[in-house]
Amino acid sequence: MGRVSVRRPVLRVREGGVSYRPDTLAVEEPMEIRLDGRPLSITMRTPGDDFDLAAGFLLGEGVVRDSEDIRSIRYCAGALADGTNTYNVVDVGLDPAVPAPDVSLERSFYTTSSCGMCGKASLDAVRTTATWSVREDPLRVGVEVLAALPERLRAAQRVFDRTGGLHAAGLFSAEGELLVLREDVGRHNAVDKVVGHALRSGWLPLRGTVLMVSGRASFELVQKAVMAGIPMLAAVSAPSSLAVDLAEESGLSLVGFLRGASMNVYTGAPRVLAPGEDGVLAGTVGEADADGDTVSGHRAG
Amino acid sequence: MGRVSVRRPVLRVREGGVSYRPDTLAVEEPMEIRLDGRPLSITMRTPGDDFDLAAGFLLGEGVVRDSEDIRSIRYCAGALADGTNTYNVVDVGLDPAVPAPDVSLERSFYTTSSCGMCGKASLDAVRTTATWSVREDPLRVGVEVLAALPERLRAAQRVFDRTGGLHAAGLFSAEGELLVLREDVGRHNAVDKVVGHALRSGWLPLRGTVLMVSGRASFELVQKAVMAGIPMLAAVSAPSSLAVDLAEESGLSLVGFLRGASMNVYTGAPRVLAPGEDGVLAGTVGEADADGDTVSGHRAG
Repeated sequence: MGRVSVRRPVLRVREGGVSYRPDTLAVEEPMEIRLDGRPLSITMRTPGDDFDLAAGFLLGEGVVRDSEDIRSIRYCAGALADGTNTYNVVDVGLDPAVPAPDVSLERSFYTTSSCGMCGKASLDAVRTTATWSVREDPLRVGVEVLAALPERLRAAQRVFDRTGGLHAAGLFSAEGELLVLREDVGRHNAVDKVVGHALRSGWLPLRGTVLMVSGRASFELVQKAVMAGIPMLAAVSAPSSLAVDLAEESGLSLVGFLRGASMNVYTGAPRVLAPGEDGVLAGTVGEADADGDTVSGHRAG
Repeated sequence: MGRVSVRRPVLRVREGGVSYRPDTLAVEEPMEIRLDGRPLSITMRTPGDDFDLAAGFLLGEGVVRDSEDIRSIRYCAGALADGTNTYNVVDVGLDPAVPAPDVSLERSFYTTSSCGMCGKASLDAVRTTATWSVREDPLRVGVEVLAALPERLRAAQRVFDRTGGLHAAGLFSAEGELLVLREDVGRHNAVDKVVGHALRSGWLPLRGTVLMVSGRASFELVQKAVMAGIPMLAAVSAPSSLAVDLAEESGLSLVGFLRGASMNVYTGAPRVLAPGEDGVLAGTVGEADADGDTVSGHRAG
């Protein structure tokens, strides 16, 4: 019930020999999200911040837009036949003014009536569902601020040090101040928990912030950032093609392979400021690139 | 349409300067799986081996048990209003003898009628759904064979070298021979593709094999291995608590943090053989562990 990690014996094999030792594992348990008592979705998650997770999930899917849309969040008592509360079923009461989704959320989000299933349809769905636009967000972040984020995220990941099994997501200010950090065995869940915390704290839309994630940048993570009004997503690893497409279309700045002072800016480069000056990074391309490998100062359509 | 990667311009920021260059991204596109024309599930995946993905997904969820259960797999033409085939909708025709699942698969798999939502219910669901038992599988694998798997997996990941964005899953023989490798932006998908290929090739159950994955070992990956009859799962990173629980309960050998000669054996240690001899690794615990940190030769209940 809410444990983030457990200890288990493990047979450790190392060059020098073999030993049984206690090892710390990240806890994974299913959580069911219900809307006004009706089962909606199940996710495998690390217990803790479950109400944030539920709120963030509903925001990402376009069911709610702000804290006003949520009347109540509680654990369902009596999920077991004997009346035990497993703390794995969360019921969200919507404000009566909020229309309840009528089918499987995941399906309704990605498909549109006549378009069939393609990346374009996914982009369209986000565009029509998003409450805020991030395109005009005046956020500017220095390269040196971005360079410091991965280490700040790791430093804050106390649990990660113990299990090596948790993804992290952190919301930062433009100056690199950590606003909220969440961890989970599932990387989508870590982002849902961050965004859900922000929603429940009345912070939305999250203008002027940077969301940093410990892994890759998928379509769904960009989607979650856009739905929360976050103008910049930075990831330690690679983005996917559709993540870049959605970032481009939404006006979100997408940074990948962020490892210290080294990073790739896939979209929205004008928000990244060159070190030591107020100039826009992308404006220095002509001078900096001396090896002739420049392809274009603009994005491909 | 089946592209695994695309090239895009990216602003590269390095210590020495800034440049625009073409960068290679892993393609991510949604894929819808239909059963006899009825939409069942949507996953974000890297195009390619889509029929393997569909077959493996259905096996993991307990809908099909072997190749006999599948009558046909095809792309749906006319997914778009203008009749275009997006190659993102796959329809699986089941053998008439196979009962069709009647609700959302994900939901039906994790919940049981009266138990409510908890890890125990998830374990029960796998136990009652699995066709084969892996507990009695006589597989034995030398530590030196396991130690070589991560490098063999990486060497086979030509695409990974280009994008840095793909998860890999490889099926190996007890001697460390690579039987099939698949990659995907989603790690569950990579495993579904491996298992689906095996199913469609008539290899099930996959007795005597080792499944190696490039990331973490979650509950769902153990579940997919068990459903395919694979007796050993090895992962580069950490397992979750529920992954270890399911492995323990199913009799699957679970190896984590497999990095060269260093690894942790969480369950089913007798299948791992000590180097240079035929002795069972776990049998050497008493001698090898000299620092008094031994907790037990047996697992905690």
